[in-house]
Amino acid sequence: MRVLLTGGTGFVGLPVAHRVLRAGCELLAIVRPGRDTRVLRDLGVTVLSQDMQDSEALTQVLGSAEPDLCLHLAWYVVPGRYPSALDNLDSVAASAGLLRALSRTSCRRLVFVGSSAEYAPSDDCLTEQSAIEPRTLYTACKTAVALMTTQVAARCGWTAATARVFNIYGPREPESRLVPSVISSLLAGRQVQLTSGAQVRDFLHVEDVADALWTVATSELTGGVNIASGTPTTVGAVATEIACQLGRADLLQFGAVPTRSSDAASVCAGRGRLHEELRWMPRFDLGSGLSHTIDWWKREIRERTSAGSSQS
Amino acid sequence: MRVLLTGGTGFVGLPVAHRVLRAGCELLAIVRPGRDTRVLRDLGVTVLSQDMQDSEALTQVLGSAEPDLCLHLAWYVVPGRYPSALDNLDSVAASAGLLRALSRTSCRRLVFVGSSAEYAPSDDCLTEQSAIEPRTLYTACKTAVALMTTQVAARCGWTAATARVFNIYGPREPESRLVPSVISSLLAGRQVQLTSGAQVRDFLHVEDVADALWTVATSELTGGVNIASGTPTTVGAVATEIACQLGRADLLQFGAVPTRSSDAASVCAGRGRLHEELRWMPRFDLGSGLSHTIDWWKREIRERTSAGSSQS
Repeated sequence: MRVLLTGGTGFVGLPVAHRVLRAGCELLAIVRPGRDTRVLRDLGVTVLSQDMQDSEALTQVLGSAEPDLCLHLAWYVVPGRYPSALDNLDSVAASAGLLRALSRTSCRRLVFVGSSAEYAPSDDCLTEQSAIEPRTLYTACKTAVALMTTQVAARCGWTAATARVFNIYGPREPESRLVPSVISSLLAGRQVQLTSGAQVRDFLHVEDVADALWTVATSELTGGVNIASGTPTTVGAVATEIACQLGRADLLQFGAVPTRSSDAASVCAGRGRLHEELRWMPRFDLGSGLSHTIDWWKREIRERTSAGSSQS
Repeated sequence: MRVLLTGGTGFVGLPVAHRVLRAGCELLAIVRPGRDTRVLRDLGVTVLSQDMQDSEALTQVLGSAEPDLCLHLAWYVVPGRYPSALDNLDSVAASAGLLRALSRTSCRRLVFVGSSAEYAPSDDCLTEQSAIEPRTLYTACKTAVALMTTQVAARCGWTAATARVFNIYGPREPESRLVPSVISSLLAGRQVQLTSGAQVRDFLHVEDVADALWTVATSELTGGVNIASGTPTTVGAVATEIACQLGRADLLQFGAVPTRSSDAASVCAGRGRLHEELRWMPRFDLGSGLSHTIDWWKREIRERTSAGSSQS
């Protein structure tokens, strides 16, 4: 099977690339010109360097690619800025260009990656039946592309799913995010200022997210599919687990930072279609997943330090 | 007030241009390169010839324009083809480019033109509270842009409304559509094959549509606003009214063509926000609006005939 991937250099995209290659598939990745693609090339991925907003040029590039399946992950994801950034509009335009170009290929299945934040706020666990109600530019644009994807698929005779991903952590996560910032602070012996930590969330290790996305991609599921562990936890429990594994619970300062009003009290997932219909199980639980992530950061920091020393 | 219009050469756009100019506003129109814009230039409209998908170039073009208000009508509308055409994706990409470029201007209000077909099918009259549930690529793309518009407006401090238009008729309507095809057939003495004609619809004369859009644009309404007469009628009643005015009811053959399964039994509008909140009233009822349209077609046919004779 020939698989086309967008966003393959990203936090989730690279583990997806690994997962697709482990399945023995041929992998092509559309990457924006200027991105560093060595890691993909080294894995044996065919890199197609092309701006997706230029649908005509993309059609040319995909002309000989003839993918069977497309995993569309590419999106504007700068931490802190992405919820209201106008760059989300470019991600919609790029998605429109991709859909248009794909319509002229042999592609027969598409999985688009959406977000749990597309759902209306709810104190109950979310399922695929929960109401979609985008409240930010990011989520409006994600829902926009999900709507477009569904109808292009109907028009072109594809099947399509929108995978709505909940909280993700793991190697290569941007350092300003919760898990890496707690890990790196505690490893450096710095205190960590946190909110109350009471926010309920669903955390999944990025390699499990990649495996879940591949499971959806190779299934026949259509429509919305939540990508989550199905086991609610709290932000506080995640920070505490990291601190306990590092023996530095003394450095956590819960309540030092006010919880933002835009931060929902609960965004958790029930056992959704991934579990019930595809019988998928994550490889990592929170403890083993955070342990794996801590080990990765320890190696990363060592490598950075030695790179720094060898340069000096 | 300086007004920016997209789609200004179209069936609805040109009457909107007339309405804006009648209000004494300065009007700028973004028109795709290659379109015939003489009619706009003759009215005194400043034509900006630019592909909206190229957001950077559009930003340059709008740099000195500094509009106060934007009416966004431009869309792919080829009769028969538009519901499932992939060109709808280009209209989304163009809308994304427009929103991005507008965010860098002084624009403070935007009215996007959506469609009554975005609503879930219902036997009841539709209101702005009815569920949005796009079922075609056209309506999915319209809803996609409505979602984007709402959130870009929130991000940029604009107010924005999505005007969902029901059935429109009047001068310059594409000839393959119901009203002009019945008029031209009956004027030529040809029989007209129709469905049962039982489909319930809401018809509004295009000049009333333009006036209603302008009323919404100059109001402070945000969110969805239906553009409709609020008086349900049937497709059969429209054809019969035309035939009676032309004295050729004998040429109508109801039931000669099967009703398409995709043709909803009822798409009608209750008295919505346009009537209740803005106290808007149409100028034409169905009788006077069709009479005006028949007169236009009679002149049009005479002009074509004399142009044909003078050429031969």
